[in-house]
Amino acid sequence: MRATVMYEAGDVRVEDVPDAGLIDSTDALVRVTRAAICGSDLWPYKSMPRDAQGRRMGHEFIGVVDAVGADVETVDVGDLVVSPFLWSDGSCVFCQEGLPSSCLHGGRYGWGDVDGGQGEAVRVPQADGTLVVLPVGADDALMPSLLTLTDVMGTGHHAAVAAKVGHGKTVAVVGDGAVGLCGVIASKRLGAEQVILLGSNPERTALGQAFGATDIVTERGEEAVERVRELTDDGAHSVLECVGLEQAVETALAIARPGGAIGRVGVPEQDATSTGVAFWKNASIGGGPAPVRAYIEELLPDVLEGRIEPGRVFDRIGSIEDVPDGYRAMNDREVLKFEIRP
Amino acid sequence: MRATVMYEAGDVRVEDVPDAGLIDSTDALVRVTRAAICGSDLWPYKSMPRDAQGRRMGHEFIGVVDAVGADVETVDVGDLVVSPFLWSDGSCVFCQEGLPSSCLHGGRYGWGDVDGGQGEAVRVPQADGTLVVLPVGADDALMPSLLTLTDVMGTGHHAAVAAKVGHGKTVAVVGDGAVGLCGVIASKRLGAEQVILLGSNPERTALGQAFGATDIVTERGEEAVERVRELTDDGAHSVLECVGLEQAVETALAIARPGGAIGRVGVPEQDATSTGVAFWKNASIGGGPAPVRAYIEELLPDVLEGRIEPGRVFDRIGSIEDVPDGYRAMNDREVLKFEIRP
Repeated sequence: MRATVMYEAGDVRVEDVPDAGLIDSTDALVRVTRAAICGSDLWPYKSMPRDAQGRRMGHEFIGVVDAVGADVETVDVGDLVVSPFLWSDGSCVFCQEGLPSSCLHGGRYGWGDVDGGQGEAVRVPQADGTLVVLPVGADDALMPSLLTLTDVMGTGHHAAVAAKVGHGKTVAVVGDGAVGLCGVIASKRLGAEQVILLGSNPERTALGQAFGATDIVTERGEEAVERVRELTDDGAHSVLECVGLEQAVETALAIARPGGAIGRVGVPEQDATSTGVAFWKNASIGGGPAPVRAYIEELLPDVLEGRIEPGRVFDRIGSIEDVPDGYRAMNDREVLKFEIRP
Repeated sequence: MRATVMYEAGDVRVEDVPDAGLIDSTDALVRVTRAAICGSDLWPYKSMPRDAQGRRMGHEFIGVVDAVGADVETVDVGDLVVSPFLWSDGSCVFCQEGLPSSCLHGGRYGWGDVDGGQGEAVRVPQADGTLVVLPVGADDALMPSLLTLTDVMGTGHHAAVAAKVGHGKTVAVVGDGAVGLCGVIASKRLGAEQVILLGSNPERTALGQAFGATDIVTERGEEAVERVRELTDDGAHSVLECVGLEQAVETALAIARPGGAIGRVGVPEQDATSTGVAFWKNASIGGGPAPVRAYIEELLPDVLEGRIEPGRVFDRIGSIEDVPDGYRAMNDREVLKFEIRP
């Protein structure tokens, strides 16, 4: 069969490869009817070192099931199916919690003995957990939109969910690529009132407006930050970072409102940063100076009724004149916390 | 009156300063009955450059109201009051949203003409928004615990809230200082099932156990990460970072479970990092590889019924043989997204 293979940056070929076929009893063999090139495919296209064996490419596809393994129950031969960009078993603890991208028994297309999606057919592992049957014909007019459910539309939606988009919120979307544009759709769908799209390509931002963007910011860097501040009172409640470059992350942080949320789906330029580590495990990082005034009223009854005893952290008491020695003692870790009775 | 003044790292003095007194009509004059030294006071104690004028210190205090301005309505002379570590008006948009730490008209103790809390008296600006009246006497046995509501207990609670602690969750608390220990209390109070405290001081971790910690990890760095992994299946659902040093942040990220949350309240060592910027505005950062399999079923009806049209991102279509040129065209930004019809 024909399939896409990348050998190094800039060297992508369509070649004859061994026909895809069932291996495990949980596999489905899918004949691809639609596929796509993803923005993330451009990362190796820009930077992949030479690999004599080549790497099979593609992870966005829809197709017709040609065969299924003995243990496949939810998918039949002849079904039109859509796959997410990762395969997953649907039954592990993370799949059950709605995080199939961290499936304990899942994996990536194009790696090991699993085909890529940019080819004529794909062996799909864990077919029951992975594939979703589509109730339309393979040439339905909705096919392009259904194809985005494999990745970019779901990724834009994930950015909006992580950025806590909701009714009446002000949203800023950083990036006018396919994911950013789908982030506009997702923000509008989740009830955002104002959707500011940051992008500089006129055709893409025009499509963003068609998708529901209320404002376009074509500036970059510090000028973009100022422009968003003009458009909002104190920044955006929700910021969707759909690029991945460090400058885009900095812009996203700068235009977020105090108490706001940044949903990050651009593949991080630098994995080693704190946010890069958090990205790959879909962890969120929150916090800052505590809004203690708001918490006093919540915690006060528990203290008054003796349910919590945080005062036990004080292990030394002194007068106001003892304060300098209190600093010394705390700094020397001789004292945990010093209480002053003036 | 007597008050604490810091002149440079290691040089803290208790001196005679001008008596505190009302200035604005929204002020209250509070005679301090209890105050404390905060872990964050140790940062200037370690590193403050020489300042000939000195800096007034302290932001954790309880006291009796001695006088109020003409516009103060909720606090009376003779009331025993507790203050959060920042003053705030209680009426701005951020105060109304539960984020008084970002009050548009608030500020810090010890700055400008506002007294510090480590002294005999404090002029409290925005008294109605800032102070909470306590229904006990000034020498009540609960005073140490009530004093923690000014900062450390509220800050530990904030870490737990930001880390999304809830019933049945596994929590890890990084740091056995007063905030970390209060984070243990907060985690237990919010229903955590397992609370792992990372700290090396035996007296402090013993207090942590009294507060509800179920496991103590005395190792640091990579060894601590391995130990937490042994104690949990896949890491902690919630991680409270209560130190602020970069190593502590790295440990917090490493021990978080996929899909987990890190609540960060340790004052960042490096303000310039992405997470440092987010910290000061209490913004959260979330996201990662989208759990697309979970989203397909949510988004599919909207595509099938035509409510969203993400397929409009495809602006070029080709066969499998056209794929190499599709990569080139997308990389040259000539094409937004390439659809393959094998």
